[in-house]
Amino acid sequence: MGHGGGGAMSAELVEHIFLPAFGGRTAAALGDSAALSVGGARLAFSTDSFVVRPLFFPGGSIGDLAVNGTVNDLAMSGARAAYLSCGFILEEGVETALLGRVAQALGEAARAAGAEVVTGDTKVVESGHGDGVYINTSGIGLIPPGVDIRPQRAAPGDVVIVSGEIGLHGVAIMSVREGLEFGVEVRSDCAALGGLVEAMLAVTPDLHVLRDPTRGGLAASLNEIASAAGVGVLIQERAVPVPEQVANACAILGLDPMYVANEGKLVAFVPREHAEAVLAAMRAHPLGARAAVIGECVPDHPGMVVARTAFGGTRVVDLPLGEQLPRIC
Amino acid sequence: MGHGGGGAMSAELVEHIFLPAFGGRTAAALGDSAALSVGGARLAFSTDSFVVRPLFFPGGSIGDLAVNGTVNDLAMSGARAAYLSCGFILEEGVETALLGRVAQALGEAARAAGAEVVTGDTKVVESGHGDGVYINTSGIGLIPPGVDIRPQRAAPGDVVIVSGEIGLHGVAIMSVREGLEFGVEVRSDCAALGGLVEAMLAVTPDLHVLRDPTRGGLAASLNEIASAAGVGVLIQERAVPVPEQVANACAILGLDPMYVANEGKLVAFVPREHAEAVLAAMRAHPLGARAAVIGECVPDHPGMVVARTAFGGTRVVDLPLGEQLPRIC
Repeated sequence: MGHGGGGAMSAELVEHIFLPAFGGRTAAALGDSAALSVGGARLAFSTDSFVVRPLFFPGGSIGDLAVNGTVNDLAMSGARAAYLSCGFILEEGVETALLGRVAQALGEAARAAGAEVVTGDTKVVESGHGDGVYINTSGIGLIPPGVDIRPQRAAPGDVVIVSGEIGLHGVAIMSVREGLEFGVEVRSDCAALGGLVEAMLAVTPDLHVLRDPTRGGLAASLNEIASAAGVGVLIQERAVPVPEQVANACAILGLDPMYVANEGKLVAFVPREHAEAVLAAMRAHPLGARAAVIGECVPDHPGMVVARTAFGGTRVVDLPLGEQLPRIC
Repeated sequence: MGHGGGGAMSAELVEHIFLPAFGGRTAAALGDSAALSVGGARLAFSTDSFVVRPLFFPGGSIGDLAVNGTVNDLAMSGARAAYLSCGFILEEGVETALLGRVAQALGEAARAAGAEVVTGDTKVVESGHGDGVYINTSGIGLIPPGVDIRPQRAAPGDVVIVSGEIGLHGVAIMSVREGLEFGVEVRSDCAALGGLVEAMLAVTPDLHVLRDPTRGGLAASLNEIASAAGVGVLIQERAVPVPEQVANACAILGLDPMYVANEGKLVAFVPREHAEAVLAAMRAHPLGARAAVIGECVPDHPGMVVARTAFGGTRVVDLPLGEQLPRIC
């Protein structure tokens, strides 16, 4: 299960099995999406499969996730999603009414994100060989001129900004799946981030890195960036916005919010001279209202993420091995 | 299971569930791929999930299928596949050595087709909730200027050409899965058709329709074209190239070769004035050596496919309800 968790074990699979087999360009495409040149246009292209359980959860469904996950991967290279594909793998016997609700949610999420579902495929496997509904979406978006956003561009001096409170998606899934209650219902933050990224790009096309911290949480994203760019990342633990119900749930379950998945948040590495204006633009957008500076990119400890704790000490924030909770997306 | 078979039940699912949910553009994209305009370029975009059992079979594997299936969908709009995405859904416990062999086959098939795998994703589901390896691929290709190939363009007078012998993939899967033997080993015809289509387009950009008869076989493809264009299709049954081992297997199993899946064949609707030259170009290509004219597009019986039998009678070739054999791709 760890190999699907977006952490060190996933990276190992990619490095030792997929890259040698696929070769060449794949190696350059370790960001959330690949940047391509096709017929003179600069495109972002991304794919994601969704196997979340349960199919519906507070704040969303597999249909919402399938759209927002791919839309957000494209947004992380500065592209606004234009076209989506959609492949269903259905388990024999799944109710057509349930499938209809999933398709409806998917269609609505696509319309909300301004993307069109233009091609699709359906396969059916025997009862007991699937799990209701799996969905793959792939997406194509246009990268605006002058925009070059990728993990390798993180540079010492960059300000690290997170777009809002972390950990909501993971805790929402966990609470509904395990039947846990934490006082108030925790709702997934599942959302499409294309509009927020556009607002940030309106300030400057020179954003260095964007990443949506899904599987493996903020810790996995920061580690991937530090490692890709060969820079250090220093986080002020107190500055990371953790909602009370996420903090409570994590305390009870022995989890670290830094490792819990999000589905409607991004982390940005922004050149210092633009940081204040970008932060203001984010806060003016509904999906960035709680945006906060959480740290900076440093020349020290390249490849490592270090957090300054509330007590003044420091700790290393490791790349997680797997995901704390399987099948959250 | 029938809803995944590419026949009437699949069409029903698309018409009653997916189209109403996704709306707009999806409706126009009922070909094998969608034709899009992005940043001034004309792109074909297609997706397919692969759930074939067994993962390896005579003549190919799920890795080959995953590449060739999507490459061929793009080729059916005249596009040469440029970029592929690849999403794996793995079952917990699948051997990494097996996964490595699948990835290797996929990589080799992509290189053979001249396409690059540029982005990917891996999810893992618990043991008993998947089936070893499922793969989704999506692909992007550039449509050459002046090319407009789609089912709606079939017109009375068009000559119907098939690129070679039919039924090999379906019979190969069936024989290995069911442990049947038909004298000689039947190998899948799984192949990438981009090069063959380029050779045809070199004769004329004005090909009307191309289709790869996978699930539901030649019968399903011809019915979809007849229905999309509102034309009749008249086939000379004797002209359809059916290899002896496919004919034998079908006779034993009570199947009709017209309904058996192919993975390396195409059917073309070509304006009469170009038919001879296109056929010659096909025969000069290794994947079209056994190409044959099998019939014509007629103004009679719109939406219907009729076959003239070897005995001089005629019979209606219906759209199959589902697939004769589940999970062949």
